[in-house]
Amino acid sequence: MPYINIRVTREGVTPEQKLQLIEGATDLMTRVLNKDPATTFVSIDEVETDNWGVARENVTTMRQREAEQKAIR
Amino acid sequence: MPYINIRVTREGVTPEQKLQLIEGATDLMTRVLNKDPATTFVSIDEVETDNWGVARENVTTMRQREAEQKAIR
Amino acid sequence: MPYINIRVTREGVTPEQKLQLIEGATDLMTRVLNKDPATTFVSIDEVETDNWGVARENVTTMRQREAEQKAIR
Amino acid sequence: MPYINIRVTREGVTPEQKLQLIEGATDLMTRVLNKDPATTFVSIDEVETDNWGVARENVTTMRQREAEQKAIR
Amino acid sequence: MPYINIRVTREGVTPEQKLQLIEGATDLMTRVLNKDPATTFVSIDEVETDNWGVARENVTTMRQREAEQKAIR
Amino acid sequence: MPYINIRVTREGVTPEQKLQLIEGATDLMTRVLNKDPATTFVSIDEVETDNWGVARENVTTMRQREAEQKAIR
Repeated sequence: MPYINIRVTREGVTPEQKLQLIEGATDLMTRVLNKDPATTFVSIDEVETDNWGVARENVTTMRQREAEQKAIR
Repeated sequence: MPYINIRVTREGVTPEQKLQLIEGATDLMTRVLNKDPATTFVSIDEVETDNWGVARENVTTMRQREAEQKAIR
Repeated sequence: MPYINIRVTREGVTPEQKLQLIEGATDLMTRVLNKDPATTFVSIDEVETDNWGVARENVTTMRQREAEQKAIR
Repeated sequence: MPYINIRVTREGVTPEQKLQLIEGATDLMTRVLNKDPATTFVSIDEVETDNWGVARENVTTMRQREAEQKAIR
Repeated sequence: MPYINIRVTREGVTPEQKLQLIEGATDLMTRVLNKDPATTFVSIDEVETDNWGVARENVTTMRQREAEQKAIR
Repeated sequence: MPYINIRVTREGVTPEQKLQLIEGATDLMTRVLNKDPATTFVSIDEVETDNWGVARENVTTMRQREAEQKAIR
């Protein structure tokens, strides 16, 4: 009966990648805990970069800085 | 002070149905645990069918298969 | 495929009451959204009264005040 | 390693306000628990007013009543 | 910055198994989404079998029935 | 109607610190979003160090390494 919730920033995750997350998380529960895939739920939440903070800044700002640093190099 | 979070797939749940979920979940807390409705919160999350997995596949695929099986019959 | 999470304070909820919450939440999803009970999950979190805050105080303090007010009357 | 999830109704929270929530929640963890901001995550969920219930009604209805009461005065 | 929450029933999951879940979930985010393990959080919630419902019954009852069926065979 | 969930590792957080988290999170919602404390909920989850992973290892291991490095100095 596992329930896995995956939260990532909304930055263009494709349906194919989402399916890989669902398959991978389900397989992990089977491999490690012998859980039945039939009763394993996976939900994926995509969070706007303005709504996600790490190290006291939002991911929007973090991505801008990363892009600027790349441009300089 | 109960907090109830209901997660369903985003498949056309109407405002009226959402209100019924809010009322029903609140009444359940009052009936079983004698909780005060004034401090009972209910939040409903609607999750895209691509973002919800059961039995190692996403709900988008599951719905397509169900529709095909219906068409055959 | 609904997933319902019920969070209440840990104040002596019995196994029988928990079962009533599970049955009631599952029935609500069937009644309002025609969901299949077989793929409806309910999880109940019991939170210590020190760990739950409403109106800027914890529930431990709230319960003490309620008990004192009852004693006065 | 704290993870803070803030859920509010979707009623025009600005990016600047979201940043203040991220900064404030991170600072709170540092001030009270001496946690490292570098490994403090904050995520903000904005929930539609139809999807949030308090006291057995949704916030959409609550806001309409509040607006009507204001108009009367 | 992914955050993965894994919820399973509390049925003797060992520290070693928990570590495999942490490693597996982190690797999944790296493999599918190229996420940095340094900023990937995994939390595991173990839920009492009385507090988890599937198909309108709790897992305690489900496990008893499974044990009885095994004993008969 | 905000709901704030704070998840930290279970490492001796005192009732007084928990109250400070409740007060601080509630005040943050009032200061930034003008929310009413009366309808602001805060819940705190304490997660075992074996059940929390960062950077592909659990916090138990991380704490042991930190303690060893301190002992060496």
